[in-house]
Amino acid sequence: MNPIITPLAGLAGLVVAFLILATILKRSGGEGKVKEIADQIHRGAMVFMRREFVLISLFAIIIGGLLFFFQKAEYGKQQSLAFFLGCLASSFAGFVGMFTATRANVRTTIAARDNGQADALSVAFFGGSVMGLTVASMGLIGLGGVYYFYKDNHAVAEIMEGFAMGASLVALFYRVGGGIFTKAADVGADLVGKVEAGIPEDDPRNPGVIADNVGDNVGDVAGMGSDIFESYCGAQIACVAIVAAMAANLNVSDPGAIVAHGATKETLMHMPLALTTMGLVCSILGILLVKIMAAKDPASALRIGTIGAAVIFIGGAFGLCNILGVSSNIAAAVLCGAVGGIIIGLITEYYTGGKPVRDIAKSGETGVATVMITGLSVGLKSVAIPMLTLAAIIFVSYEFAGLLGVGMAAVGMLGTVGITMAIDAYGPVADNAGGIAEMSAMGPETRKITDGLDAVGNTTAAIGKGFAIGAAGLAALALITAFIQKAHITDFNFKDEAVLRTFFVGLFIGGVVPFLNGAITMDAVGKAAFEMINEIRRQFREIPGLLEGTGEPDSDKCVDIATRAATKRMVMPAVLAVGTPIAVGFGFNAFGVGAIALTGTLCGALLGCILMALFMSNAGGAWDNAKKYVEDGHHGGKNSETHKGCVVGDTVGDPFKDTSGPSMNILINVMAIVSLVIAPLL
Amino acid sequence: MNPIITPLAGLAGLVVAFLILATILKRSGGEGKVKEIADQIHRGAMVFMRREFVLISLFAIIIGGLLFFFQKAEYGKQQSLAFFLGCLASSFAGFVGMFTATRANVRTTIAARDNGQADALSVAFFGGSVMGLTVASMGLIGLGGVYYFYKDNHAVAEIMEGFAMGASLVALFYRVGGGIFTKAADVGADLVGKVEAGIPEDDPRNPGVIADNVGDNVGDVAGMGSDIFESYCGAQIACVAIVAAMAANLNVSDPGAIVAHGATKETLMHMPLALTTMGLVCSILGILLVKIMAAKDPASALRIGTIGAAVIFIGGAFGLCNILGVSSNIAAAVLCGAVGGIIIGLITEYYTGGKPVRDIAKSGETGVATVMITGLSVGLKSVAIPMLTLAAIIFVSYEFAGLLGVGMAAVGMLGTVGITMAIDAYGPVADNAGGIAEMSAMGPETRKITDGLDAVGNTTAAIGKGFAIGAAGLAALALITAFIQKAHITDFNFKDEAVLRTFFVGLFIGGVVPFLNGAITMDAVGKAAFEMINEIRRQFREIPGLLEGTGEPDSDKCVDIATRAATKRMVMPAVLAVGTPIAVGFGFNAFGVGAIALTGTLCGALLGCILMALFMSNAGGAWDNAKKYVEDGHHGGKNSETHKGCVVGDTVGDPFKDTSGPSMNILINVMAIVSLVIAPLL
Repeated sequence: MNPIITPLAGLAGLVVAFLILATILKRSGGEGKVKEIADQIHRGAMVFMRREFVLISLFAIIIGGLLFFFQKAEYGKQQSLAFFLGCLASSFAGFVGMFTATRANVRTTIAARDNGQADALSVAFFGGSVMGLTVASMGLIGLGGVYYFYKDNHAVAEIMEGFAMGASLVALFYRVGGGIFTKAADVGADLVGKVEAGIPEDDPRNPGVIADNVGDNVGDVAGMGSDIFESYCGAQIACVAIVAAMAANLNVSDPGAIVAHGATKETLMHMPLALTTMGLVCSILGILLVKIMAAKDPASALRIGTIGAAVIFIGGAFGLCNILGVSSNIAAAVLCGAVGGIIIGLITEYYTGGKPVRDIAKSGETGVATVMITGLSVGLKSVAIPMLTLAAIIFVSYEFAGLLGVGMAAVGMLGTVGITMAIDAYGPVADNAGGIAEMSAMGPETRKITDGLDAVGNTTAAIGKGFAIGAAGLAALALITAFIQKAHITDFNFKDEAVLRTFFVGLFIGGVVPFLNGAITMDAVGKAAFEMINEIRRQFREIPGLLEGTGEPDSDKCVDIATRAATKRMVMPAVLAVGTPIAVGFGFNAFGVGAIALTGTLCGALLGCILMALFMSNAGGAWDNAKKYVEDGHHGGKNSETHKGCVVGDTVGDPFKDTSGPSMNILINVMAIVSLVIAPLL
Repeated sequence: MNPIITPLAGLAGLVVAFLILATILKRSGGEGKVKEIADQIHRGAMVFMRREFVLISLFAIIIGGLLFFFQKAEYGKQQSLAFFLGCLASSFAGFVGMFTATRANVRTTIAARDNGQADALSVAFFGGSVMGLTVASMGLIGLGGVYYFYKDNHAVAEIMEGFAMGASLVALFYRVGGGIFTKAADVGADLVGKVEAGIPEDDPRNPGVIADNVGDNVGDVAGMGSDIFESYCGAQIACVAIVAAMAANLNVSDPGAIVAHGATKETLMHMPLALTTMGLVCSILGILLVKIMAAKDPASALRIGTIGAAVIFIGGAFGLCNILGVSSNIAAAVLCGAVGGIIIGLITEYYTGGKPVRDIAKSGETGVATVMITGLSVGLKSVAIPMLTLAAIIFVSYEFAGLLGVGMAAVGMLGTVGITMAIDAYGPVADNAGGIAEMSAMGPETRKITDGLDAVGNTTAAIGKGFAIGAAGLAALALITAFIQKAHITDFNFKDEAVLRTFFVGLFIGGVVPFLNGAITMDAVGKAAFEMINEIRRQFREIPGLLEGTGEPDSDKCVDIATRAATKRMVMPAVLAVGTPIAVGFGFNAFGVGAIALTGTLCGALLGCILMALFMSNAGGAWDNAKKYVEDGHHGGKNSETHKGCVVGDTVGDPFKDTSGPSMNILINVMAIVSLVIAPLL
């Protein structure tokens, strides 16, 4: 297969995405108040993207410059270039997604008002699809392009790692910065608006409401998208790096030989890209399937589209192996990853929507403290099956195709990213549509439709979150194994006491990172929310007639404060993520054991990050839904003592599930890719 | 040095302990109401010890039987015997400690009433000293005795491991069972008494108050004592096992040669026991120092006693190395451990008593949710410096004396256990003394003295807790390295992909264990507290005149319920701790990779356990003290909204710091010692 096919398919995917975007933009964007609100949200989102981009550029110039001047001369310049391309590709995907989402939201509202649920679902889903297809396409264009141009360079893997590092850096900023933004706005708007001023959620008089709606996009579209994008790139590059480490002729003693079946090393190296290329086609087919089915039952349309795409993808993987003359064990590993991803998604759905949620709600009858204890306990418990599933994926996929199998399992989880990401991005579009309906005082009928869409989105989002953690963990693991293979460690034997000692020292250091990151990000939300609260209070106090509805809130000021807070407070996590592997690697190199210590650090951080990501995301999701469950009339319903307890749970859960938890995915991937890039220098 | 000296010193220490006990028992045990209450507490404590002992016996017979029949024939029977001895030694130490503490408590109250603070401190501290000396002495008698009798058996290390496993099993039951008991009683008594019935803490009308006071002893005397006992044994046995794995002639290529300086392997093997023997003498000197200084300033007397003992111990270690003809590098490693322990203790004190506590209290002004978020963030942050300190201890002590140095650092942390444990056990005695004063309606003057003693105890207890986690972590690490050395892994090389795969699978499984343990123990407290609440409510409802003070509460029934709940709900954690290494080891042995997978599991569990232990204990301690800080009149004082928020924090923190957190110490040590024992079978 000619590798040019990958970037070309990416370009084709991008064209499809833009065609979908064009059809969305052609629809009515509302009028008067509706349009005004939507424009405010859109503008706010663009402000955030621009500011983050400036900050990213700053970091990118420093890191890219370091690569350019200090990386090994044979490929440092190319790697640096690829790094900038990775930054650009991820930023572009994020920009397109945000642009689309903040245009699709109001069109969903209008569709709900004018044409009913099926049409509204179409708009929201296609809004998400643009993001999904852009993420997949930019990955293929970027990675595929870099591969195509440098495929004859013996350092092609290293150059591609630069691209992945760029993607990771951008993800760090959008995911963590977005997480801080969204929660600062949410907590600020809720606390002053709902609690102090006693006005309902999404009330247009609240100066923080626009920022809150911007935040949904910032966190769940740009944040989630860049998160998935970097896992997507990381998984593929890990496979390329693993193949690159194999012997040139793939002789029998080499693990690659098991699967190569006589195919060349080049074929094997392009294999992950070929798979994802096919995955993009499957995603487009899945999106078509949703389009066809949407008129009947929206929820099942989404399900059938996703599962359909996955099934075609797995079938296609076996076919592709056959065509390329590679053992079908590769496809079996892909199957492993896809199945494992679904299991993790379903478990996530159980813990954030099933009996555990009802247990939390019930515990609210005995007060806030028991809500907290039960929720924390649910979160702690929820890590078990996903972790064991990941362990099983690693064990089994290795049996099929060695370490390459583990990487391929990660690719399998992420192959149909075009449609899974579409469904993730659908959520905030539907959520925003509801917000716009509320703010522009549309009737309860419109609101009911958007609420219905939102509920569907919540379930799919929970599954998507579990999926994202699993994929990120597996991608990071593959990168770490690639790092270990590449590092200059002549004898990495645990029976050697010095090795064991250094490994444990690294392990302990690595374990600290996710805990510290959790604390830093939670503090950041707290402080950012505090600034937000002060601003909203000030406006209520100083703007005449605001509460009576005659004055205009200064919403832009709130967006500005949240943006400023997010950019300022995300520097620390970024330094932690990028700095730790560099400090450990070069620090311990002074004793000649940098690579071993860094291996320990990566193991500790990997374990800690996955555990904390699952714990925090699931506890947060469970608290959120326990509150909603009580609001649906259980255990005394809204405004009961039980409800008050659950509201506290939800408030604590918010930074858990939307800031700290998801930031762990990126943290470990950034650490892994930075380590892989500096490996030759250790 | 003749190894008989160790058990003889242990016997001498026990004699000193009993002499101190005799002088305590000679003092007035109170009269009338006071005596009655004290007797109830004493009786309750004895009931708990008896019931736990029955359950322990059951588990011990199964595990001891398995060792007897299935362990390698060459030493299985002896190991089984040592295992039972370990169970007995730990149980005996726990029994003596509990007996003494529940006799010393009332005598402290009487001393406070009749003779003032200095005398009361003496009684409380000497009550604790009996526990401290018994723990150290039983360790020396048991380990020293086993070593003495089997020193010519080439499997002496394996036989001693049996002893450590016995100690760990008992610790598991006392620490986890005790933790469940104490919090069930505490939460039940507080919730129904203080919140529902509106009567003060420690009010004699509350049926749960006796159980609450029993709980303080059960958790902080028996639980803490057995925890420290097993770390104490584990650290020494790890050193013995590491030396045992060295070549018989300690040739130059062997790491032991660095430190042996021509001394025999036997000398090196007895070295840890010789050090702790000397440590016991230092502890007794320290206790004498406190006795001499107590009349002046109680708080500084405790500090001078502890630090004095540690300084003499470190000086003595250098002297001992000189006498035995061993390199003073061993003593340097001991110094490392001791200094590291103090740093961890001080950091613990900061996070549970310094600025972070005031931050939590301040966050109470904006409600419960911020108290929760700030507390969780403080807990997450608090792991960093202790973990890095542990990493530094490992790194530096290895430089001095290889892996043996790491084990010796753990011994260094625990060498003066006689006095550090005395100070730990002093806390609950002082706490109980206050409870008895309150229940028997003594004047505010007595209560003020006991409150003063209690405050001193809280600070020392925080330091002690950090110390215990550090020591447990280091002891477990030493055991794990001993396991890796011993396991039949011909090539444990990370460059081997299959090894790497299996290690990661194990790592992921291991990481689950502490999280699952946290969830199980928190649920256990919740359910046990629920049973307790129902019983106390029933008594208030059904016993006529109880609230008016004319009826008698059925306190024994509450003790019975807490005991029953504790024993029942501690089976799951015990199965998890003992079962995981067995399941992973033998399960993966089916694929021929049991030892590698188990190594991964131990690494994951070790990291997770230390992190979670620090996080949960420190967050809990910080919440507790934030509540006390507000009660002292800050941020609105008692019954303000801030106070209410902090009370919730304290309620959530209770199972964190007294049940789940401390259980992690034992969990990892049980897993490590079980692995070490089954290593030859893998």
